[in-house]
Amino acid sequence: MTQPPTSTEAPTEARPYRIAPQTGTGFCLQKGDVLVVIDPMGEQVSDLMAFAADNQDEWLSSGRTFDYNETIYLTTGHRLYSNRSRVMFTLLRDDVGRHDFLLTPCSTETFEILYPPGTAEGHPSCFGNLVKAFAPFGIQPDQIPTTLNIFMNVLVDEKGKVNIGPPISQPGQRLELRAEMDLIVGLTACSAEGSNNGTFKPIDYFVIPAGTRAE
Amino acid sequence: MTQPPTSTEAPTEARPYRIAPQTGTGFCLQKGDVLVVIDPMGEQVSDLMAFAADNQDEWLSSGRTFDYNETIYLTTGHRLYSNRSRVMFTLLRDDVGRHDFLLTPCSTETFEILYPPGTAEGHPSCFGNLVKAFAPFGIQPDQIPTTLNIFMNVLVDEKGKVNIGPPISQPGQRLELRAEMDLIVGLTACSAEGSNNGTFKPIDYFVIPAGTRAE
Repeated sequence: MTQPPTSTEAPTEARPYRIAPQTGTGFCLQKGDVLVVIDPMGEQVSDLMAFAADNQDEWLSSGRTFDYNETIYLTTGHRLYSNRSRVMFTLLRDDVGRHDFLLTPCSTETFEILYPPGTAEGHPSCFGNLVKAFAPFGIQPDQIPTTLNIFMNVLVDEKGKVNIGPPISQPGQRLELRAEMDLIVGLTACSAEGSNNGTFKPIDYFVIPAGTRAE
Repeated sequence: MTQPPTSTEAPTEARPYRIAPQTGTGFCLQKGDVLVVIDPMGEQVSDLMAFAADNQDEWLSSGRTFDYNETIYLTTGHRLYSNRSRVMFTLLRDDVGRHDFLLTPCSTETFEILYPPGTAEGHPSCFGNLVKAFAPFGIQPDQIPTTLNIFMNVLVDEKGKVNIGPPISQPGQRLELRAEMDLIVGLTACSAEGSNNGTFKPIDYFVIPAGTRAE
């Protein structure tokens, strides 16, 4: 495993990347590429955001995605939509079956508001890591909306209460997302204790180039 | 009742406004103002979006709001947060107890994807009406994220399925939102048949100026 790229070069299957605990990375996908996100040790979360490569005002939209799929729980076969109602990703394979698209990435303010006093100071966050990941592409912090929180175990009960549990992902389980347009992607290994059962673990990913994945 | 203002002048209790069916309006609120949104005939939906008046990169965030309130169903006492985790509104009074913050405003693409063929062409939409409402303030269409869909009756079942039912709002029922910062607000009378039991009705609103509402 190597560290995430500092350039915009996309990783390949022959050269997978490991996102170190509590960090993130940014990269480009071409239409047809399949992004494979793996939880190598289990019980870890990876926040994903994407923007259209040719127009950074087009972004992955939780609201459009919920609306058109008529569900808040996304899995194999579902399509993820942009704010312009275009398909950004199709979910091709989901080993876990539980991801979140309700909640924003953890930020300094998340730790101030929801965690015990003293947690926030100096605490890495997915929001901060996405800000860094997108900065080389010229994407501003305020452009980062609700993320697809891969492997995050959020259940909504009949009264609407949002309950965050430990991820049910087992070591080596994956989510595969096919890019349906050229994209700029940010991806993290989550920094929040409350989302990954108190541990900080890495996330692995690689990209299967367009047209080479056996369907 | 008068028609919505074409200027940025805010309405007052003595001069309430009626948003005509399938239209929208934009206006400013000052910190402490209470926005009162009324369903005058019942079973109608009103989509609301807000931006910080002094920084249009700060916007009302469904994801931050769900996270910090730990619920998807918002009612009296809940606070609505911006993408910067600052409080934009506090809900002071809720006669209905059912609103939606999951789904994006109906758009031309909504009618293309979810409605029978032929529905979309020339169909007014909340998204289109919000675009018009925000244009005088320099806010761009791509800046409009998931809206607070006041009186919209969206239930999520235990499998995550999103079910849109007729609003349970009765004639004259209201939602009161106190602005916690200076805001630019867009507000609609919803254009989507599927959200308001097949009818198109108006929405009324007025503003109680800061410091004058009896608590």
